[in-house]
Amino acid sequence: MSRKAMVRPGGRSARVQASVHAAVRELEAEMGREALTVPLVAARAGVTPSTIYRRWGDLQELLSDVAVERLRPETAPQDKGSLGADLEAWAEQFLEEMSAPTGRAYIRDALLGDPDGSNAGQCSAYAAEQIDVVLDRAAGREENTPSVETVLDRVVAPIMYRILFRPEGLDTAYARQLVAGLTGSADR
Amino acid sequence: MSRKAMVRPGGRSARVQASVHAAVRELEAEMGREALTVPLVAARAGVTPSTIYRRWGDLQELLSDVAVERLRPETAPQDKGSLGADLEAWAEQFLEEMSAPTGRAYIRDALLGDPDGSNAGQCSAYAAEQIDVVLDRAAGREENTPSVETVLDRVVAPIMYRILFRPEGLDTAYARQLVAGLTGSADR
Repeated sequence: MSRKAMVRPGGRSARVQASVHAAVRELEAEMGREALTVPLVAARAGVTPSTIYRRWGDLQELLSDVAVERLRPETAPQDKGSLGADLEAWAEQFLEEMSAPTGRAYIRDALLGDPDGSNAGQCSAYAAEQIDVVLDRAAGREENTPSVETVLDRVVAPIMYRILFRPEGLDTAYARQLVAGLTGSADR
Repeated sequence: MSRKAMVRPGGRSARVQASVHAAVRELEAEMGREALTVPLVAARAGVTPSTIYRRWGDLQELLSDVAVERLRPETAPQDKGSLGADLEAWAEQFLEEMSAPTGRAYIRDALLGDPDGSNAGQCSAYAAEQIDVVLDRAAGREENTPSVETVLDRVVAPIMYRILFRPEGLDTAYARQLVAGLTGSADR
């Protein structure tokens, strides 16, 4: 937290961060993540290893930061015309991305090198922001909407719990069932 | 998985496991977990470091195994006379134990040193077994019961998600609200 709080956008610090993140992504693609070391990343990024140790502490914390960047949603949720359809489309995509091997690896990295919990919190904040867009749109259509926290409990939490602890049966039908249970289009 | 599958209860292998686990617990209590190393654990357990590396791979995998042992429930869920009361009591205790600093540390350890996911799966299996006891008892009283998977989705998953990703507001009222939402004693 304290280390990251010192990064000013546009300054030298931000440039170092961008080049180190890029070096991790490139080396991971070229050699696989098992081969990553701080000296290798430093050499590729054109910084000294001590710059990396000073800013990130260790490789695990650096990988956690890179993973959170990759978990940042790139597009707004689709507008399908109703709360149920929007949530279903979003949940299906979320499940698909997070349960893919790369998604699982990023979630794992984000959690592991995150002593103060700020990166895990950022992952949850990304999901909450996307859900907010869906709910605002539904409120604009004068639909009844649950709270963001309820959607996190009923849709996001079960998906993430199963990815981490109970990975069978993570398919589109499961994402739909979670949304249907929440929007009342099906009841248990 | 392959390493652990070779442990036969009662044999030398089981004795080594018990003494290594005990050494981890003792050293952690005496020195704190940051100070743990494989050679220290080996010396305390009376085995060679290579015994530990051969069986567990590294310190993180050993800590994951020890964490799962500690997350094993020690008692059956209380019988309070109804499904709602039993689930509420169980969920309150589960939230309290898992969200305490020691519980969080064990969950984290269990996830981190667990390349094949078997330890995380064991954590979920423990919760499912406890819930099964509550549901069987309720079925014996001829109450309507949800499935174990539904209780995992509606009660366990939100608690674990928030512990890992969104740790504000984890209190008894939250556990009760999750159970009430499921058993229908309160609706959103």
